[in-house]
Amino acid sequence: MSDVSAVKAALKSQVIETPSWGYGNSGTRFKVFAQPGVPRDPFEKLADAAQVHAHTGVAPKVSLHIPWDRVEDYAALTRYAEELGLRIGAINSNVFQDDDFKLGSVTHPDPKVRRKATDHLLECVDIMDATGSPDLKLWFSDGTNYPGQDDIAGRQDRLAEALAEVYERLGDDQRMLLEYKLFEPAFYTTDVPDWGTSYAHCLKLGPKAQVVVDTGHHAPGTNIEFIVAFLLREGKLGAFDFNSRFYADDDLMAGAADPFQLFRIMHEVVKNGGLKTETNVNFMLDQCHNIEAKIPAVIRSVTNVQEATAKALLIDTEALSAAQRSGDVLASNGVLMDAFNTDVRPLLAEVREELGLARDPFAAYLASGNQERIAADRVGGEQAGWGA
Amino acid sequence: MSDVSAVKAALKSQVIETPSWGYGNSGTRFKVFAQPGVPRDPFEKLADAAQVHAHTGVAPKVSLHIPWDRVEDYAALTRYAEELGLRIGAINSNVFQDDDFKLGSVTHPDPKVRRKATDHLLECVDIMDATGSPDLKLWFSDGTNYPGQDDIAGRQDRLAEALAEVYERLGDDQRMLLEYKLFEPAFYTTDVPDWGTSYAHCLKLGPKAQVVVDTGHHAPGTNIEFIVAFLLREGKLGAFDFNSRFYADDDLMAGAADPFQLFRIMHEVVKNGGLKTETNVNFMLDQCHNIEAKIPAVIRSVTNVQEATAKALLIDTEALSAAQRSGDVLASNGVLMDAFNTDVRPLLAEVREELGLARDPFAAYLASGNQERIAADRVGGEQAGWGA
Amino acid sequence: MSDVSAVKAALKSQVIETPSWGYGNSGTRFKVFAQPGVPRDPFEKLADAAQVHAHTGVAPKVSLHIPWDRVEDYAALTRYAEELGLRIGAINSNVFQDDDFKLGSVTHPDPKVRRKATDHLLECVDIMDATGSPDLKLWFSDGTNYPGQDDIAGRQDRLAEALAEVYERLGDDQRMLLEYKLFEPAFYTTDVPDWGTSYAHCLKLGPKAQVVVDTGHHAPGTNIEFIVAFLLREGKLGAFDFNSRFYADDDLMAGAADPFQLFRIMHEVVKNGGLKTETNVNFMLDQCHNIEAKIPAVIRSVTNVQEATAKALLIDTEALSAAQRSGDVLASNGVLMDAFNTDVRPLLAEVREELGLARDPFAAYLASGNQERIAADRVGGEQAGWGA
Amino acid sequence: MSDVSAVKAALKSQVIETPSWGYGNSGTRFKVFAQPGVPRDPFEKLADAAQVHAHTGVAPKVSLHIPWDRVEDYAALTRYAEELGLRIGAINSNVFQDDDFKLGSVTHPDPKVRRKATDHLLECVDIMDATGSPDLKLWFSDGTNYPGQDDIAGRQDRLAEALAEVYERLGDDQRMLLEYKLFEPAFYTTDVPDWGTSYAHCLKLGPKAQVVVDTGHHAPGTNIEFIVAFLLREGKLGAFDFNSRFYADDDLMAGAADPFQLFRIMHEVVKNGGLKTETNVNFMLDQCHNIEAKIPAVIRSVTNVQEATAKALLIDTEALSAAQRSGDVLASNGVLMDAFNTDVRPLLAEVREELGLARDPFAAYLASGNQERIAADRVGGEQAGWGA
Repeated sequence: MSDVSAVKAALKSQVIETPSWGYGNSGTRFKVFAQPGVPRDPFEKLADAAQVHAHTGVAPKVSLHIPWDRVEDYAALTRYAEELGLRIGAINSNVFQDDDFKLGSVTHPDPKVRRKATDHLLECVDIMDATGSPDLKLWFSDGTNYPGQDDIAGRQDRLAEALAEVYERLGDDQRMLLEYKLFEPAFYTTDVPDWGTSYAHCLKLGPKAQVVVDTGHHAPGTNIEFIVAFLLREGKLGAFDFNSRFYADDDLMAGAADPFQLFRIMHEVVKNGGLKTETNVNFMLDQCHNIEAKIPAVIRSVTNVQEATAKALLIDTEALSAAQRSGDVLASNGVLMDAFNTDVRPLLAEVREELGLARDPFAAYLASGNQERIAADRVGGEQAGWGA
Repeated sequence: MSDVSAVKAALKSQVIETPSWGYGNSGTRFKVFAQPGVPRDPFEKLADAAQVHAHTGVAPKVSLHIPWDRVEDYAALTRYAEELGLRIGAINSNVFQDDDFKLGSVTHPDPKVRRKATDHLLECVDIMDATGSPDLKLWFSDGTNYPGQDDIAGRQDRLAEALAEVYERLGDDQRMLLEYKLFEPAFYTTDVPDWGTSYAHCLKLGPKAQVVVDTGHHAPGTNIEFIVAFLLREGKLGAFDFNSRFYADDDLMAGAADPFQLFRIMHEVVKNGGLKTETNVNFMLDQCHNIEAKIPAVIRSVTNVQEATAKALLIDTEALSAAQRSGDVLASNGVLMDAFNTDVRPLLAEVREELGLARDPFAAYLASGNQERIAADRVGGEQAGWGA
Repeated sequence: MSDVSAVKAALKSQVIETPSWGYGNSGTRFKVFAQPGVPRDPFEKLADAAQVHAHTGVAPKVSLHIPWDRVEDYAALTRYAEELGLRIGAINSNVFQDDDFKLGSVTHPDPKVRRKATDHLLECVDIMDATGSPDLKLWFSDGTNYPGQDDIAGRQDRLAEALAEVYERLGDDQRMLLEYKLFEPAFYTTDVPDWGTSYAHCLKLGPKAQVVVDTGHHAPGTNIEFIVAFLLREGKLGAFDFNSRFYADDDLMAGAADPFQLFRIMHEVVKNGGLKTETNVNFMLDQCHNIEAKIPAVIRSVTNVQEATAKALLIDTEALSAAQRSGDVLASNGVLMDAFNTDVRPLLAEVREELGLARDPFAAYLASGNQERIAADRVGGEQAGWGA
Repeated sequence: MSDVSAVKAALKSQVIETPSWGYGNSGTRFKVFAQPGVPRDPFEKLADAAQVHAHTGVAPKVSLHIPWDRVEDYAALTRYAEELGLRIGAINSNVFQDDDFKLGSVTHPDPKVRRKATDHLLECVDIMDATGSPDLKLWFSDGTNYPGQDDIAGRQDRLAEALAEVYERLGDDQRMLLEYKLFEPAFYTTDVPDWGTSYAHCLKLGPKAQVVVDTGHHAPGTNIEFIVAFLLREGKLGAFDFNSRFYADDDLMAGAADPFQLFRIMHEVVKNGGLKTETNVNFMLDQCHNIEAKIPAVIRSVTNVQEATAKALLIDTEALSAAQRSGDVLASNGVLMDAFNTDVRPLLAEVREELGLARDPFAAYLASGNQERIAADRVGGEQAGWGA
């Protein structure tokens, strides 16, 4: 796509969804370091998300997490989002923190626990109805820690049963996004460990079930862009959870650990129609900001995704395709690298300027005084975090 | 399955298929070390396989590899196998050693190369007809080495097209086994890199297409027994390629690197009906014996698979199931480990004795003088190897 | 070592140290599931450790963790240990949970924080003096999450400075054990990420500094027994932290994930003199029991280490050495596997019987009623855990 | 280093050594695809290396490999190199392709084989004398494939003995560079598997022994730049073998798989004085060009290393250091990323222009007609390759 105005148009229409929990405290099993100014409730999380959108112009949607973001009045929360220029994105279910879920949720050996877990998922669909959220995002920590602990195939039966019940409950404009993850917190088996498992379940469920690719959830060496291309070809890529990693599921800022990988992923997205509105891929962030300031970290992640997208849009697709057809390995690789090696920050600065925004959203946010303001204002109460 | 006679019966009826190329020379990219007595042609490979069967009693089938095992007269080869008490197992296609296949075979950008590759696959089906082989095993080295080198999704289209043509050609009692592999020889993308890709293609092709699990073809940390359980639940596990590894696709003797993993795999096989004849799982070895004597190494691999199977059969399934249902993590793990910690060599020695074989096939082979005989006899000619 | 009485003597004299924190609550970043009967203070942790020793006969030492096990009166704690038949093992320092340590402890860019961290290490030496502990075990979570975050070499300078100060403070019969870990909680660099780094620092410090090998702290594919053999050859193996893993630092029960690896490690220990008292290797457990009952899980871990040791002791070393010298790959591997495939549970049952213990410590503990007793007694108060 | 003229000067003085074998045929264990125009002897390899130097201006040194590059008259070879504007770089020993070395070379159980291997290393020092090469580069494929196959610590003794003998033979201006590699071709143990092992041996040998970091020789997740910083701090980094990988030792073009990693490595090199002449780090390529044209692939690798170096030189070190000292995670990471995101191709084009070279060496080479010329000229004879 060599037409600059088309590239700019694509960049302006891109939507990156940010997660409510990314604004709260997080950490590792060793320690959660609290930060000043962290939100105490879902409304304050939305306010933080609004800051990200105000400075980047491409982050108008916010994922919620239930029960962390449970409120009395979802209509009020939705209205507040709208006042901030936001809308509610995916509803994420949490069936891993109740004591009953120690050995699993929808795959637990005990049917009573499974019932409780499925009911929680159904509640999440209720919240979708109440907030206008189009996406139910399911991630299950279900699995086992030791060989023999439970019946691997039996757990698949239970999983399929729960998913089918929830799928039935979905409205016409709602879909189910099924996330996979290699390991953690389960250490021997995970019930949805890879894209193949998620894909197989989604296929059986029907067109409203699609796969979520979390960029941090793979075994070392996995070629994520292959999975992205494959799922787009199959019409089964529902969403991304962007973040980055050096080792396990590190949940670092998107693009921080391997910007070239993020570019390759966005290349497959662009090439296979994933940026088109009708393909309906939800580009979400799913990250932890354990030691860095949270709002600026989300802003940097958004701009990292934008930069990777811009580079992918700048690829000379005709030259690439010609080189590929002719089997010229170095030429085709060269076309790709030309785009990657381009400094797209000036282009994105222009895009922002044309949207009426500051050229550098990170600097603009830091200069805005918001960080100091929330640190001063949000005193007392209990800071939001994974501990809910 | 605590009934010893039932365990013994299961062990007696197990069939492990050995690969013709395992008897030839092999090595790494650094060096192939030749060994004395290595076969010079497919007939001598069959003779070696017959030695393995003669001493173990459970290895009556031999996989062939085309073109390495191409002969003028397949009927003669088949008759020779029968005379040795063997039958022809899977036909493996080789579309990675012709100069035309440098950038791929069925996924090559050039349609002429794809035609040549597909024709080779069709020739393999002809050989199945001629030899009575029931299984066409497809492994593609197809992939790319560099980002941008070719179109990932486009290669899937080409793959699907070739597979469909070959699938159509299969007879009623023939099936297609589609192997996946994370990487090597391709270093950036592989066109069938994981079970999900193989599964998705097999699903579209139909019931005669099934997945092959090669135990050495996964990313570090992949839980292979999960894949086995999943595929058996879906009726899509066609075969194993057994071997073992510490790092990449090391192709060491089955059970040598991680006997506990092999046991866990066989537990899922037993538990999910994979040992039953009607499930029709082909238990193949696929290994290299680069520095160790080949026939004894195959014998040890066969007995390693037998030992893992015996332990899996000895699991107290009722106790396991009860512990699993009650959520007793340590008890259920303990039931599994009890079986693993059992020394099953005496049981297998009895099984062999009841079959009229020596109790220790490895020692019996070494004492037979065959190794010295082939070293003395097979002088001159060109030893078989991957270079074919 | 084929002499059974010598094997038994070695097994009787083996000492496995258990960690106080293994008896407390633990979990992942997603959730800590509390268990009934968990200790509320260091004294109760010692009582649990005494249960393990009472049933296994080989676990008379307990590692403490400061500040989790900080008490007013260390003499009283030491006396209590002695009354229970225990003694205090390694003192573990914790410089990763204070808010000041968010960006590091002894490698922090701020000298005031470094001072605070080093002072904590010195306090741990004071506690060694007070409790008679011979080992200061140092694990640093220090590292960075993002490229550029800090100066890698500069952090090594700071680390070396702190270690030197602490080393100077050690008494004649005290030593420093420096643990390494690939990653977590730091996600980009870790200041002591591998054995080489620990070894290099220990070498400069002097003979009282030695390396700790935690079996869960390596990159995928690392050959741990090689490291063990290498460090024993250099006189620099100070201790083990035993646990097991499938993926990252899963901290599962020792021997649960890969019993063959544990056996290979113990083979190198036995072969290279690591079991001799004068070599002074401390065999510690370092595990989490997130979903399984804690005391029984520690008992199983102890017996798993014993079984691996017994198998290693049973290796026919003369046959092994002869096969190795002759270059017979299959024979030498066969000697090793013969020992591994032996069921050593009867031998260990005899060893226990000769020590006046029950043959099966796991069953004996469950039958003892202790688990129900502590669940009933330890009500109220705050359960011990990593959150300390 | 913000001064552009200083950056340019550094880039002009950089020396990248290319390997003779990179111009020959190579492949995987599955197939070596021959290419037209590949050299038939060491002289033609030098001619190809001269092409790389002619177009890049920074590649005047060529590593040789013995016996692949064995010639009658090393003086003649050296003179030919000089005529081409080249000089002989490291001499690489090959003790892995003789049949005697099947189970090892300097660590082989048989002293006669060890003698032969050590003699080969000594011959390599003779060739250093004859060619003026300053560096003896040792990579050993020595290791074992199966647990128990040989004595791990015993092999270290043998290794140490051989290294000591060769070290003694070195002249005053010669050094030994000891390379490590995780695995391949050995699949269970490798005798020099990691930097720690190489470092420990080099330390004992003395100041003329240093470690080689091959960027493709690590376990997944290993932080290579940490190792680089550590070794530079210790004065023990002797050389790089640059190449890149997605999985195992893929030997792809440097910078092709992870340009951000190469940048981080070069940042540590620059920061820790590794670019200074007196530090004497040898920046070598060590790659295979299995499917791409070889000379252009080496040119691209050279420019990739140059681009990473240029970006590293452009880092605002004062701003970085200030941000690091203040503990500002996002600011310090931002300083690094600013440099990485810069398009340095125009700067390098200027550097080349100032050296009297074409701005784009890759394009200039393709336009030169050399590739067609060698394809036409080099007909007949046996192409060079790993098969010696």
